[in-house]
Amino acid sequence: MEDLAEFYSASARVMTRSLIRELLKLTRRANVISFAGGLPDPSTFPVDELKAITALILEREPHLALQYGPTEGDPRLREELVRWMAKDGIAATRDRVLITTGSQQGLDIIGRVFLDPGDVVVLERPSYMAALQVFRSYRVEMVGVPQDDDGLRPELLEETLAALARSGKRVKIIYVVPDFQNPSGVTLSEKRRQRVLDLAREYHTLVVEDSPYRELAFEGAPPPPLAALDGEGRVIYLSTFSKTLCPGLRIAWMAAGEDLIQQCVTAKQAMDLCCPAFTQAIAAEFCAQGHIYTRIPPITALYRRKRDVMLSALTREMPKGVTWTRPQGGLFLWVRLPEGMDTEQLLGPAVEEEGIAYVVGSGFHADGTGKNTMRLNFSYPSEENIEEGIRRLARLVKRRLPTLTPAP
Amino acid sequence: MEDLAEFYSASARVMTRSLIRELLKLTRRANVISFAGGLPDPSTFPVDELKAITALILEREPHLALQYGPTEGDPRLREELVRWMAKDGIAATRDRVLITTGSQQGLDIIGRVFLDPGDVVVLERPSYMAALQVFRSYRVEMVGVPQDDDGLRPELLEETLAALARSGKRVKIIYVVPDFQNPSGVTLSEKRRQRVLDLAREYHTLVVEDSPYRELAFEGAPPPPLAALDGEGRVIYLSTFSKTLCPGLRIAWMAAGEDLIQQCVTAKQAMDLCCPAFTQAIAAEFCAQGHIYTRIPPITALYRRKRDVMLSALTREMPKGVTWTRPQGGLFLWVRLPEGMDTEQLLGPAVEEEGIAYVVGSGFHADGTGKNTMRLNFSYPSEENIEEGIRRLARLVKRRLPTLTPAP
Repeated sequence: MEDLAEFYSASARVMTRSLIRELLKLTRRANVISFAGGLPDPSTFPVDELKAITALILEREPHLALQYGPTEGDPRLREELVRWMAKDGIAATRDRVLITTGSQQGLDIIGRVFLDPGDVVVLERPSYMAALQVFRSYRVEMVGVPQDDDGLRPELLEETLAALARSGKRVKIIYVVPDFQNPSGVTLSEKRRQRVLDLAREYHTLVVEDSPYRELAFEGAPPPPLAALDGEGRVIYLSTFSKTLCPGLRIAWMAAGEDLIQQCVTAKQAMDLCCPAFTQAIAAEFCAQGHIYTRIPPITALYRRKRDVMLSALTREMPKGVTWTRPQGGLFLWVRLPEGMDTEQLLGPAVEEEGIAYVVGSGFHADGTGKNTMRLNFSYPSEENIEEGIRRLARLVKRRLPTLTPAP
Repeated sequence: MEDLAEFYSASARVMTRSLIRELLKLTRRANVISFAGGLPDPSTFPVDELKAITALILEREPHLALQYGPTEGDPRLREELVRWMAKDGIAATRDRVLITTGSQQGLDIIGRVFLDPGDVVVLERPSYMAALQVFRSYRVEMVGVPQDDDGLRPELLEETLAALARSGKRVKIIYVVPDFQNPSGVTLSEKRRQRVLDLAREYHTLVVEDSPYRELAFEGAPPPPLAALDGEGRVIYLSTFSKTLCPGLRIAWMAAGEDLIQQCVTAKQAMDLCCPAFTQAIAAEFCAQGHIYTRIPPITALYRRKRDVMLSALTREMPKGVTWTRPQGGLFLWVRLPEGMDTEQLLGPAVEEEGIAYVVGSGFHADGTGKNTMRLNFSYPSEENIEEGIRRLARLVKRRLPTLTPAP
């Protein structure tokens, strides 16, 4: 037939494939130590509880759990999520929650409902790669604001918003991952959270708060969610059970004002009618039995230990000129090689010569910068593999270190 | 905060809510006999098999089934679907299959990958309501082609395509539900299937074949799928286990050429990363154990009986001037009241005076015509309720029948 590309939409023409997910395939085939994924450690999966709960659901309510369900999601699950979010100070109600297939679907719904080509989304630099992907598919302009160890720098956010306003551009959304950010691992301070909200009000934008890692706190809870500080329904809050229960049920949710959620429900109806009733019934029962509340401490203890192993190995192995973040939670840390090094060029040798993988940092930058950076995941590999993998990575970096000439 | 509507995208401004799904909520609350939904009879759900299989999956492979999976879908499930489609003459391979959350997500992916505002989609009149919804959200022009008892009328399809070509419009997709169509229940004849493919070639369009009801054949198999007749990779085939296994797992799939599927995988990656690994592992095992092959005959026997009960009741109860289709499979039949009657106006009294519900026919018409038509579902209500419900519906219709004056 005719050339398929003739048929593609403008959106399809700008879509990009996730480097991470492509890489995951590679590392699954090869026998490599991978710091590339963002997978939970499967030893944390609550297999016994899920066995009992699936059996119960299929005994008690097969007519409901195997049938179509409401687009909004299982009402019992939404009730449980209201309770779950209340512990973080978010005052939701059932009608202000929409169940989604991963937070990724929440982002896509937000794109569908709010974004037109040419709109502007302001986000952290670096930012979550799959968010860049979905926003890009809506053909918006993405503007990155640098972070430091306390997250997004508000004075630069203000400058950015002011400059965009002067140039007549419409900023619809400020997108932030405030807790143990993917990819950098840094957390937005409370003062800055308030400042982001103030700026959103001043510049008439929505705030999308994407918080998949919030529960995985190694040194005490992070500051309150922006959604808890928000007094006027400006924040759309995204969360998920992928990192706390397991990813394989794909249970995530959006919480926002009721009108906004209603519009998102309309969009989701056209997108997939509803999420599986079965997985939602399981998640609701898992919460109702209280497991979600008791299982977080052992998970964070495990990931804290793995983070510590990775930090120690980096300190021990890495040459001068290499720096990294010290995340207080989450799954990732962020490494900066000396300027002039290119982690994309380094990836082939990393896989082939050293049998290790990471994610190239430029993929997290809307503007393609960050060439000397990489993201490392510490939740999935074993402690032994973290030690060994960092040893190999450091060996490679040393081998490739440029002969640095002092700046003039 | 500001008026939320200020933030909406052009797509959100044209989205419509499904009448069916809104109505479903109503009928769940009230104590009505509903012909409105499209739900399978829950007595067909394979509860015992699913109990055994979920236990097996959680015992055998929790690390896989509870983890993230590939965007394309579980490779074992895709292999099973290749085998499943082969019985209908569709020669797919694993790399030509993408798992989706219901066929609805398949339609949305197609919209994302192929449709720009102003493109034209040609479809049956009436057509599947949720397809109209998703195409509308892509702001395309939808042009309906009338059907008769053998489905879409190819001479009118040709006229339509010729007229659109003359006016310089770009028809990207011909969308058909060829087997026991939703809403009309009619089946496209084999000769016409071939003709649709010929016209698609002549006018350079893709064909989307949406076939959720194919297995539910009461009087022998329908003609071969267009995807089996297609010699050049022009057809995108959508199918689902919602009507054959159960809807609560939301397992559906697209099959098409490999390049096309790859572009759809890229789109889905941004939309939700992947479907739940857990539900896919269950469906794969359900197929591998052969259950999907053995369970169809009892389901079709049940629905054939229910269809017969509905047809008999209609014949017995309905006044002259009311006509209906005699579907050879599927879940629905289509009723035409005398011209001048309006099923939308009738719906309030139907629910309130008679305690019955149906779906207003105009919702299935891209151009808002079909005001005297309605869709009735016979798979979900009991045989007793079908008898009683049709009795009540006929009583209402008789009460509201216009005093017909003979045409001049």
